[in-house]
Amino acid sequence: MTEVDAPCRAALAAAGPFEALGRDGRAGLLEALAAALEEQRRPIVAVADRETALGTTRLDGELTRTTYQLRLFAEVLRDGGYLEAAIDHAGDTPMGPRPDLRRMLVPLGPVAVFGASNFPLAFSVPGGDTASALAAGCPVVIKAHGSHPSTSQLCFDVLAGAADRFGAPAGTLGIVHGLQAGIDLVAHPAIRAVGFTGSTAGARALLDVIGRRPDPIPFFGELSSLNPVVVTPAAADARAAEIGAGLAASFTLGAGQFCTKPGLAFVPAGPSGDALVAAASQTVAATPVAVMLNDGIAAAYEKSTSVPRGTALLRTTSATDLPPSAFEECFGPVATIARYRDETELFAALAALPSSLTATIHRGPGETELPAELTRRLLPHAGRILYDGFPTGVAVSWAQHHGGPWPATNSQHTSVGATAIRRFLRPITWQNAPADLLPAELRDGYDHIPRRIDGTLVLSPPLTTSPMGSAH
Amino acid sequence: MTEVDAPCRAALAAAGPFEALGRDGRAGLLEALAAALEEQRRPIVAVADRETALGTTRLDGELTRTTYQLRLFAEVLRDGGYLEAAIDHAGDTPMGPRPDLRRMLVPLGPVAVFGASNFPLAFSVPGGDTASALAAGCPVVIKAHGSHPSTSQLCFDVLAGAADRFGAPAGTLGIVHGLQAGIDLVAHPAIRAVGFTGSTAGARALLDVIGRRPDPIPFFGELSSLNPVVVTPAAADARAAEIGAGLAASFTLGAGQFCTKPGLAFVPAGPSGDALVAAASQTVAATPVAVMLNDGIAAAYEKSTSVPRGTALLRTTSATDLPPSAFEECFGPVATIARYRDETELFAALAALPSSLTATIHRGPGETELPAELTRRLLPHAGRILYDGFPTGVAVSWAQHHGGPWPATNSQHTSVGATAIRRFLRPITWQNAPADLLPAELRDGYDHIPRRIDGTLVLSPPLTTSPMGSAH
Repeated sequence: MTEVDAPCRAALAAAGPFEALGRDGRAGLLEALAAALEEQRRPIVAVADRETALGTTRLDGELTRTTYQLRLFAEVLRDGGYLEAAIDHAGDTPMGPRPDLRRMLVPLGPVAVFGASNFPLAFSVPGGDTASALAAGCPVVIKAHGSHPSTSQLCFDVLAGAADRFGAPAGTLGIVHGLQAGIDLVAHPAIRAVGFTGSTAGARALLDVIGRRPDPIPFFGELSSLNPVVVTPAAADARAAEIGAGLAASFTLGAGQFCTKPGLAFVPAGPSGDALVAAASQTVAATPVAVMLNDGIAAAYEKSTSVPRGTALLRTTSATDLPPSAFEECFGPVATIARYRDETELFAALAALPSSLTATIHRGPGETELPAELTRRLLPHAGRILYDGFPTGVAVSWAQHHGGPWPATNSQHTSVGATAIRRFLRPITWQNAPADLLPAELRDGYDHIPRRIDGTLVLSPPLTTSPMGSAH
Repeated sequence: MTEVDAPCRAALAAAGPFEALGRDGRAGLLEALAAALEEQRRPIVAVADRETALGTTRLDGELTRTTYQLRLFAEVLRDGGYLEAAIDHAGDTPMGPRPDLRRMLVPLGPVAVFGASNFPLAFSVPGGDTASALAAGCPVVIKAHGSHPSTSQLCFDVLAGAADRFGAPAGTLGIVHGLQAGIDLVAHPAIRAVGFTGSTAGARALLDVIGRRPDPIPFFGELSSLNPVVVTPAAADARAAEIGAGLAASFTLGAGQFCTKPGLAFVPAGPSGDALVAAASQTVAATPVAVMLNDGIAAAYEKSTSVPRGTALLRTTSATDLPPSAFEECFGPVATIARYRDETELFAALAALPSSLTATIHRGPGETELPAELTRRLLPHAGRILYDGFPTGVAVSWAQHHGGPWPATNSQHTSVGATAIRRFLRPITWQNAPADLLPAELRDGYDHIPRRIDGTLVLSPPLTTSPMGSAH
């Protein structure tokens, strides 16, 4: 516990001063962190490549994603809409007189972030959870992933050094290593929330630790996802070769170790579907054997697929005869194509699917009826629905959502995109507060952020609102 | 399980058609439900008074609150800001080309609502959880509270009849009775979230049931709250009698059975504090013995306080000598006044407090330094902070927050006010969707709701935005 106790206590001590940096201060810090990572790009990518063998192209891309993400959260902070600021002035209501009420979101306090095996730079020490928690105003204690400890420590040193030079309070960032440290971290009284990317079993174990706390805390887990793909007969008729090759490229990308890997695709029976499968098989056959992220993942892949580690595999079966394994996420370059003869077979199979982060529909040119029906059936079980594309590649943006019902996540929030910040915030309402005790954002004169005033959303700054009503 | 299975299956079958009513349709339904309750006001209040002995004045007020709340959620629906709609058009980014992404919130599916003992009309069958879940587009299955089964059934019949006449799908509302039914409800596969107002022990038991589900679901519990009050020396000097009488009126209101009852007040040592205590004692002595909500609550009150059930009790002690019982919520007309000699004693006692729904500060005229320090110390442990007032009475409005860190709730969301709807929603992102498969709110031409377009918040309708940037 001692190893974990020191960074947690430091994070708790940092929480007040860190929040007091304010939105502009924290935006500046995020940009300083991005700049520091950019400066150390070469050594970071080199260490990460040595540890993960993911290749410098992929790792360079990941670092770019991470610095972009830090800068996006700086933009989120300056915009201020994420505060959900609302002011109800005192007045009469049918329920009687109402006091002056002013609400906005505030940081939760120190957050524990669990690094992921499959994104050493984008979902680990400097990734989306860290960026969104810091943006929210929460100090972060990171549990480094055992697959890339040196990368984790180097990234941490770069971030912590930059935070220190920027003037962030000591304890704003902390790091711990090892399985027991992760458990101790989630149990530590200073920790107010957990961001986790990993297995369902790992999440269940940590949820048990949280359930034994005297004060259970929020846990945001991104867990397991099958990511079904449905190809309509019209789509197969129109683009069999393209869809087949694209599907294979997507499920073998990064050795199939993405949470959005398409693990199960429904393809019509018949010649167009046959052509699609042939194209996919060709791409799979041409895919080089990949180095997987670690021995545990590689061994699990061998055991589950009976092919050598890192070897791409396309399984085919009938939609009426799906084995239970086809419904479970398998980490690695494997996918199942299930052939369906008609909509009855297809819909019956879809009804049995677990929920996923994504669901994909390939439709024929101008086709609407079947895609609409598929949308209706897939939406209750997915967080993102895509058309005529593949689910790997999760853009960082305002409108992104990376989440979904269990087992995709245990959360109603996203771990990618601007709204990921909501996970680490909670509302507070000030009632009849004197103006000088209110946060600046809730005072009457303040006009730098969008606010809901007496029920009406008001943009900022009100006097220079453009004809489009835009805030800038 | 059979008793529970039928309404849950019906709720699941209703989910799609109910969502398809759309925001305007659901707003109309909420208004029809409010009108139906209003029409049956006399019989509802009469039955509730027979079952709870809360008195017709209080119960009339509760019904008014409930109908007001239903109409507020109709307004929330028509405003549409709660959808958090965002559109990122396709374009280039430093991370490469980005697809077209469009995000908004959608209903979770059937919600289980647990009625509360202490608000038969405002947190039970027709209360805040039901109103916000229906507004979100979720069918509701209610677990009636055993303290007022006839009131629950009558309210349910009124609501279900009105929903039926309005044309809501069968299964939009369901009801079950009994402890085992509550457990079966939380375990039922059709249920997608739980709204609960009750004890910490009850919440822990239901969280265990959820943990054993193959798919754990969100649980929103409003649990236990001490609601500390701090009176500064300057406030006691200025308004001893007023604050003392107000405190006593607040903790004895409704027989002290409100979740916002002030259970512990810090009052300075010395003559002004003595006068405050004397005024509070006088009010307590003049408070009639109250009928409590049920035998269990009354027996627990007797056991905990050693005074007869329903008898108001003011305990006094020193801030340096608080017994463990002073830190626990006790349901009933009892509060503790803890006297402090200086800020050191006060701050030490505050540091030991559990989190609460509310924290209250009484300050002297124009006093700012100590109130600011108290605000800083109390905010991390409260969801609403009030000045120069008392926490009972929770206005239903846009800026209200009724929540707080454990044990106040287990949630980062509110159970009162417009934003309570967020509990029963989840985001979905549509990627490269053809326009005719998008919800109307995410199509390019739509301008009836506020949306974030390419990172910029845009009000509706853009061409008639007033100089204040208001949406109306």
